[in-house]
Amino acid sequence: MSAVATQAQAMDAGMQPFETMAAGLFDEIAERSRDVAGVSRPAFSQVETETLEYLADFARAQGLSVRWDAGRNLVFSLPEDADAEQSVLVGSHVDSVPQGGNFDGLAGVVAGLLCLVRARREGVRFARPVHALAMRGEESAWFGPCYIASKALLGVLGEEERSAPHKGDGATLDEHMQRVGIDMEPVRRGEALIDPASVLTYIELHIEQGPLLVEKNLPAAVVSGIRGNFRHKRVRCIGEAGHSGAVPRSYRRDPVLAMADLLTRLDESWLTIVQKGDDLVLTAGMVATDVESHALSRIPDKVDFSLDIRSQSAQVLDDMGELLRHEMRTIERERKVRFELDGALRTEPALCAPAVVEGLTQAATRLGLEPFVMPSGGGHDAAVFANAGVPTGMVFVRNRNGSHNPAEAMEISDFLAATAIIYDYLLESPA
Amino acid sequence: MSAVATQAQAMDAGMQPFETMAAGLFDEIAERSRDVAGVSRPAFSQVETETLEYLADFARAQGLSVRWDAGRNLVFSLPEDADAEQSVLVGSHVDSVPQGGNFDGLAGVVAGLLCLVRARREGVRFARPVHALAMRGEESAWFGPCYIASKALLGVLGEEERSAPHKGDGATLDEHMQRVGIDMEPVRRGEALIDPASVLTYIELHIEQGPLLVEKNLPAAVVSGIRGNFRHKRVRCIGEAGHSGAVPRSYRRDPVLAMADLLTRLDESWLTIVQKGDDLVLTAGMVATDVESHALSRIPDKVDFSLDIRSQSAQVLDDMGELLRHEMRTIERERKVRFELDGALRTEPALCAPAVVEGLTQAATRLGLEPFVMPSGGGHDAAVFANAGVPTGMVFVRNRNGSHNPAEAMEISDFLAATAIIYDYLLESPA
Repeated sequence: MSAVATQAQAMDAGMQPFETMAAGLFDEIAERSRDVAGVSRPAFSQVETETLEYLADFARAQGLSVRWDAGRNLVFSLPEDADAEQSVLVGSHVDSVPQGGNFDGLAGVVAGLLCLVRARREGVRFARPVHALAMRGEESAWFGPCYIASKALLGVLGEEERSAPHKGDGATLDEHMQRVGIDMEPVRRGEALIDPASVLTYIELHIEQGPLLVEKNLPAAVVSGIRGNFRHKRVRCIGEAGHSGAVPRSYRRDPVLAMADLLTRLDESWLTIVQKGDDLVLTAGMVATDVESHALSRIPDKVDFSLDIRSQSAQVLDDMGELLRHEMRTIERERKVRFELDGALRTEPALCAPAVVEGLTQAATRLGLEPFVMPSGGGHDAAVFANAGVPTGMVFVRNRNGSHNPAEAMEISDFLAATAIIYDYLLESPA
Repeated sequence: MSAVATQAQAMDAGMQPFETMAAGLFDEIAERSRDVAGVSRPAFSQVETETLEYLADFARAQGLSVRWDAGRNLVFSLPEDADAEQSVLVGSHVDSVPQGGNFDGLAGVVAGLLCLVRARREGVRFARPVHALAMRGEESAWFGPCYIASKALLGVLGEEERSAPHKGDGATLDEHMQRVGIDMEPVRRGEALIDPASVLTYIELHIEQGPLLVEKNLPAAVVSGIRGNFRHKRVRCIGEAGHSGAVPRSYRRDPVLAMADLLTRLDESWLTIVQKGDDLVLTAGMVATDVESHALSRIPDKVDFSLDIRSQSAQVLDDMGELLRHEMRTIERERKVRFELDGALRTEPALCAPAVVEGLTQAATRLGLEPFVMPSGGGHDAAVFANAGVPTGMVFVRNRNGSHNPAEAMEISDFLAATAIIYDYLLESPA
């Protein structure tokens, strides 16, 4: 953005309704990250950096303090709170999945910014200093590991995660993080880049990624906790290549039918577990035979697929890991194939702090909104803060068509209602 | 090949044992078409043309007549039979699947050549004039349709087949055929490029593509008939994209689990049908979610897969087509997805002519080989000739590890035994 444009925006901004301001920010950033379908803001990419720079320009024009932290994330605050040793963090991420929606992550970043702009405009002080945090890479789509920026901030980004190759260029996450200017030495040593004790509370606004608020006709909800998960970026089933027409059934070692068998068994167990009342979701998002050698008339020698298994219960995650191995062993015996599992990426379920849930619920009630508390199906940076011992809370915004796809649809009025809950909480809640 | 090398080969060749000659031809051609794994000789490609030119040089050096036919295939003969109006064709194809084995197709071409070389060396006349035919594109791997060259020769290459895009560059089969120099006008009009009545008998040697001859410890077999098939190069299952963690099971429209369900149902029916004693094989050789948009944490909106279903019974093929549609409809209702089928490519099962089967079996017996007759699991150009009313026969050579993969393994001694059956048949059989 040119200096002139920044000035012009600064002069206008004082009179801009928040609705226009929010819609403008979302539109401008979407425009800058358009893909064939939806938007693509890859984790630790140039597009991601430019998105942050655009937000920095906006924040400065609004009279806010802006600084880069040691993870090359952006921290915004009222000028008077810039040097506070402890603060409430209102954060989320700016990256997206490939050809994803514009609001997943970005909504939480804009919410934090708008709380600061509103406080400055209204000339009020928060109950405690507030820092808004715009983080980088949270999505697993680019490297496999998720919540990368928050893990780096809290010193829990593991070596295996840092070594994960980018889905496009194959360079490791560590290399990509270095390329955007992060000093990786402390990250590699497992040192936290921020003192967890400096974070009084972590608050994150996020679009709901499922259909519950639409079904219940509510603009927003307070989140009780976040599903944990274990994921395998690549499960490989290895069989034996052969001519599609000439190998009788009993001589076959077909990896595709073995994969289908495994997924069908997991799907059947999923139904049973849900019917028992336990929490579980299961996805094989990527499936592929080898494009270099596969053919209509060739039994493939192998097939690769991913598995993403989530639950609010650590026990259910353990049980599913055991079931997966059991079914693989059974199918290996029956179909003479072999399964290879890469290392599981596991994130533990995380509970929001009851005091924060209560504080946010009271804020919603004060605003005349129906208080509704629900679990989060998707994982979020909030889980990393919660698991590091930071009291954590989340607010969901109603959103149609799920997320991680271009059709996600959040109404700005719902977004402002959810942001108001956080603003009211920040004004009123001493802890 | 340089003129000098051709001369040197010509001088040596008179003394070269057939074993050395066959092994040399296979090795030289493999060397010219090496890929990362195995060999790749794409249908209607430059590599294919160079393979034919290499064979032409070899044949000329052996004193054989060589000419290109209207389908840009090569026809070899003894000089005295070059202009015969009717002939026995001994043919097969020189193309391969991607990263395939060297013998699928090529063995039948070399067998025809060796019969001619041997007749010339031994100074004998065949019972009827013999033309050896080295054809282009037979494999479906490159465009979808199979037996392309023989279909073009016999005027049955359909418009849909000609419009099929190449898996690599996307240009149509018609364009690729034109590029290698075929005048496509008669092909488009459905005119036969050769008079079927000019083909007295069609004989094809091919490696067995299944494990039966290895199991039975026999070098060769006579083929009774060829499995027909119907194939869908692309079946698409369309669901709804969403966040892997946030959409409860009951709200999902997951195309991957729907595909797994379909394949598992087809696999179960396959087992039942085989246990009843009917003939059937079924392969989903290519499976892929969209590499541009798929992700570990995204329910994909769609998945593509191929289906190749083969049987010696036209009724079983009809029944499987009906079953496929029925199962798709059931799964569409249960899982709220939608299946799209591209046009099926269908080839009818083909019977070998009883008189030719008998003639080849008698030849094997005269040579002291155990006569063994078996069906062909794979499809072959022979099926196109048989279905055009040409009396057709095939001989299989024992081969380990199936075909359409780099590990296919044919012993030269087995190949020479099978070639000897054809040679003896050509010498002795008046019809």
